[in-house]
This record gives sequence, C-alpha cells and structure tokens, in this order.
Amino acid sequence: MKLKLFTAGLLLAMSANAQILYHDASAFPLLGKATDATLTRYERLPDSLEHISRKPLWDLGRNSAGLAVRFRSNSTRIAAKWEVRNSMNMNHMTPTGIKGLDLYCLQDGKWVFAGSGRPQGKVNEATMVRNMAPEEREYLLFLSLYDGVTSLSIGVDSLSVIEQPAVDLPVREKPVVFYGTSILQGGCATRPGMAHTNILERWLNRECINLGFSGNALLDLEIAEVIASVDASMFVLDFVPNATVEQMKERAEKFYSIVRAKHPDTPILFVEDPVFPNSRFDRKLAQEVASKNETIAAIFRSLKKRGEKNIYFLSSKDILGHDGEATVDGIHLTDLGFVRYAEILYPLIKKRIR
Amino acid sequence: MKLKLFTAGLLLAMSANAQILYHDASAFPLLGKATDATLTRYERLPDSLEHISRKPLWDLGRNSAGLAVRFRSNSTRIAAKWEVRNSMNMNHMTPTGIKGLDLYCLQDGKWVFAGSGRPQGKVNEATMVRNMAPEEREYLLFLSLYDGVTSLSIGVDSLSVIEQPAVDLPVREKPVVFYGTSILQGGCATRPGMAHTNILERWLNRECINLGFSGNALLDLEIAEVIASVDASMFVLDFVPNATVEQMKERAEKFYSIVRAKHPDTPILFVEDPVFPNSRFDRKLAQEVASKNETIAAIFRSLKKRGEKNIYFLSSKDILGHDGEATVDGIHLTDLGFVRYAEILYPLIKKRIR
Repeated sequence: MKLKLFTAGLLLAMSANAQILYHDASAFPLLGKATDATLTRYERLPDSLEHISRKPLWDLGRNSAGLAVRFRSNSTRIAAKWEVRNSMNMNHMTPTGIKGLDLYCLQDGKWVFAGSGRPQGKVNEATMVRNMAPEEREYLLFLSLYDGVTSLSIGVDSLSVIEQPAVDLPVREKPVVFYGTSILQGGCATRPGMAHTNILERWLNRECINLGFSGNALLDLEIAEVIASVDASMFVLDFVPNATVEQMKERAEKFYSIVRAKHPDTPILFVEDPVFPNSRFDRKLAQEVASKNETIAAIFRSLKKRGEKNIYFLSSKDILGHDGEATVDGIHLTDLGFVRYAEILYPLIKKRIR
Repeated sequence: MKLKLFTAGLLLAMSANAQILYHDASAFPLLGKATDATLTRYERLPDSLEHISRKPLWDLGRNSAGLAVRFRSNSTRIAAKWEVRNSMNMNHMTPTGIKGLDLYCLQDGKWVFAGSGRPQGKVNEATMVRNMAPEEREYLLFLSLYDGVTSLSIGVDSLSVIEQPAVDLPVREKPVVFYGTSILQGGCATRPGMAHTNILERWLNRECINLGFSGNALLDLEIAEVIASVDASMFVLDFVPNATVEQMKERAEKFYSIVRAKHPDTPILFVEDPVFPNSRFDRKLAQEVASKNETIAAIFRSLKKRGEKNIYFLSSKDILGHDGEATVDGIHLTDLGFVRYAEILYPLIKKRIR
C-alpha cells in the first residue's frame, strides 16, 4: 500500500506538466463583435435591443457566430471547458459546428487549423491539440456558430504560460462587417472555423464581424444601426435568401441608407441569392430565387442611377460552384460550399479594404 | 358546415396528384453489395460471418455505407420513409450523413444532386425533392453511412409511376471494391452521397462497393475473402489509418494474397495514411503516421520485389490538399476532404478499369 502511494506520488511529480490548468478566457481579446455593450461577453447584439428587436432575432444575436478569442501559449496542448446556452441539435449540421470550438495557430503569418473542440452537450470539455513541442504560439479560438457560449476557459499545461497575443493579427482596425442569413451564420459548417466569415478573417488577416441571423435577415432597421456603428473597411449585405421581395422593396434602400449615412465612402457589397442546388429541379424555388434576384438587381440599379458610389454587386452564379455538391440539403453550405464562397468573396474584399 | 365539407372534397379531388404513394424499395436494384447472401437486404457482410467476424466488425457490416437504390419515376416529387437500426448520433457528423438519405438524378449521363433526406430518428420520413416538372427521370438514392437502413419505401405522386431503371448506369459489371476505415465508410460526410466511394461511383459511372469499417480495418482475413468474392475491375486497400504497424507486418501480405489468388490480373491500389491536419502539431501522431507509412511502403516494395504485377501505391501527400482544412476533427474528412480525395483517386482508377 505504501509503495503504491509512493509510486502514485512519483508519477504525479513526474507528470506535473501533465496537469491542465484552466484560465478564464475573459482575460483575452475577443474578436468579431460589433459592440461591447452586450448583456454578456459572448453575444452579438447590443443590450439596448433586448426589448426592441423581434424575439427570434434577439435570441439569434446571443449565438456566438463569428466570435473568436486570441491568446498566446507555450503549452504542449490546448484544452477548453465551455458551456452553451441552449445545447440544441439540428439534423443537417454537426454538433461541433453548432456548439463546438475550433482552434487555429499562426504559422508564418497564416492561420492554420490546430484542432476542434467536440462538444458533449450543455457543459463541455475537450482537448483540441496535444503532444506539441513546447513553443510559444499565437492562437485564434473560434466559438460556437449556432449556440451561445456562456462561459469559456482555456486549459494549458500547468507549467506553461498563457498570455496576451504578441502579434496584432488578425488586424482589428477597420473590420469587415457581414449581414445575412443562416448561411452567413455558418449553416452548415462542420466546425466553427469553416463559416465563410471565419475563413475570410483568416485569409484577409482582418477582423470580420458576423451578423448572420438564421431565417431572420429580414432587413430589420435596428440591425442597420448596429452595422453602421462599426468603423468598417467594408460592408457585405447578404440578406436575399431570407428577405421576401416585398421586404426588399420596402426596406432594402432604407437599410442601405442608414449604413451609408454614417459611412459615405465605405464599400458596400450586395450579394444575390445563390443558385441553390435545390432550384435545379424545384421549379417553385427556382422561380422564387429568380424573382428575388430581379428585385435586388433592380434596387441596386436604382441606387446606381441616383448616383450612389462605392456600391458593388455580386452575382450569385459562381458562389457555390457548378457541380451541385456544395450544400447539405440543397440550401445550406457545407465546408466545401463555404470554401468556394470564400474564394469568390476574397478578391472582391481584398482589393477594396484599406 | 356542408359548404366546408364540399370545399374540402373539391380540394381533395383537385389535389389527387398531391397524394404520395409509398413503394417498397426492395422492388428496385440495389448497388454497392459485395454479396447478396446477407441477413437482411441493406447490409454488407455475408450472413456466414455473423458468428465468425469480430462483433464490432460484424455490427459495422450492418451499416448501409455505399448502398444505393436505382429507380425511375415521372413524379413531381420524391419522398422516402425509412427506418434505421440504431439511430445513433456523433458529435462530428451530421445526422443526415449518419442516418439520412441522399438522392441523385441522371442528367445528360451525369449524376446530379437532387435533395437529401433529413432524418428525425429511428423512424423517418422526408420529401427530398418537390415541384419538379412531371418528366421521366432516373434516380440513384444513397443510403445512410453510419447506421443500417432496415426498411425503405420511396414515395411518389399517386398519379405518377415508379419503375425499373431504363438506363444501365452506373455500370454494374466489374465494380470497384474499396476496403478501409471510418474515413472510407464516409466519416464525416454531411450527406451519404459525399462519401468518396459514392462520389467516385457517380464520376466513374461504375458501381463502387464500400467495405469501410469504422476503427476496424484491421486486416481481418475473412474480409479479404469477401473482397476476393467480387469480380472487380479494381481493388483499393485503404486500411493504414486503422491497422497497427504490427498488424500490417503480420497480415497485410496475407490479406493481399487472398485477393490476388482469385484475381491474378486485377489492379490493386494500396493507399498510405493521409497527412492528417492534426499531425502538423501533434508530434506523437506525426510519428505514428510516419511509422505506419514506412511499414506499408516496405510491404509494397517487398511485393514488387517478389514480382507482383498490377499493384499500385498512392502516396498520401496530396490526398487532403495542403491547407489543413479538409477535416472536421483533424482526422475525419468533410465534404471538402472527400471531394479532394475523390479528385486524387479518380484518374488513378479511371485509367485502370475496363
């Protein structure tokens, strides 16, 4: 018995570095927020909208899509403990995308996938990467796309350090702001880092702000105010899959004008409805997409005609590629779809941001 | 009240075509089986192995990975009712991939995604595509990857027909047989059609047989007998992510010889362990991959040296691309990874099959 205890003590001493110590992530910079005036840290809409925005929109604002924590560590492994608000499930998206985490590491100025945090439910713990050489590294940890992280701690070896980032990447001045639908919110990436706004944040090395609201990009004007509150390098307005023809006719110009009023020279990109694979056979959906795209094109032409500058229009024709394979359900993008979409958006944004 | 009943009757008469009639899929050809001597229709291993194979391997043989039903219909929509054996969930794969369905339609000789069947649980019903022009079309319906379909009915408009295929595509003579791991079984495609063996079945327009067994591609010799029982155009042996160095040294040549004995001239492709994104930082995993790949390369060289013909070796270096983004967890492929893997395999198989 004594020998057993002794052995146990020895093993403990030898593996002192094998202990994980958890550090509250609130000590580290958080990217992806339009405003800091939120009820809790890991949500997206200002607290002032709690009783103003429609309930489904407000609730979606509490999803942590596009948020990411930046830190530095020399630990041989990176773990996390996190809790989520709803722990919901969807049959066309992985729990890892819905309520998991996703860790990237900076290598030669580029963000490289290091490991994902696979969730168990409402309360979660996962080691995202292990067995690394004990070197100082810069990390970017993307949060859950379709649930709200309510608490987050980052675990590192007890004998290692976790510190503030030493490198100012992604650049935080003049972020790119995206407004949109379930697709924009990251439906249905397999892990948080594969939402296209997160891919673009890495490729551009510029902070991106995700204002995607599943099923609820209905041109609510208070969201235009939130968008306008950001000193952005570019605005991407990607609401067509949700907004009806009537809503667009009624509110798209007003929505645009609220943003433009505060940012007279900032590029604003309008995006058409993608050519959804489902619309290849579904004539009703094809008709709906065509009629929405005619509407947004007409609105864009009218803005041009009245002399609006720095506005751009992305035709949907190449967004998803041409093989019909970029979605899980004919509508929502997979990682394949998001990479294709990011490849289309990247040059359009890259050349227009300062 | 009378008027209401009358109106209801009129609407019913007008929408006679809106009724769905379900037809048992057992009337239609089933692709992807190495043998018809199975306990039930939608499983992969011969009943003779029930008490011979290791239990986990046998159970995985009852998953319907790679199976697909062929039919023809002029219905304006295609629906399905299906039941699955286990209704399990995994946190890194969508329920649609695990236990859903995936419908493709033949257009100008090519298989095009038409819609996925999103599951509710053990008993499922879904309309995969709707609002189509009422034209005769050829369909290929891929079954659940990580569960076993136990019953399946296909729903079409009551006034339409569902018939035997009129076109012999994919070609069923001389299928391609794949043996492998969780990845080969389709982990973690978002929908069944995105497992790479199913992608290749469409691209090659040749039946592909998926003998992927999650965590259990351990070179069990009775599986070599199953593989050898198929009059194949090519065999792809992709077991390295599961088999240990010891298992490979002990059994890989024997496994190969069982297949070769019955097929003296058929091409056999050995595949290395992919360069998993996780191995970029995880030194232990990197070491393991390197040591397994040295082992399989040595085995291949030894086969070559003893004069074996028609054997090929696929280096892993390009399988997943080079951006680290092709997986959900550093190991298992997403749709992005499966398309990349299929793009690497396609020319290698295409030029060697008759």
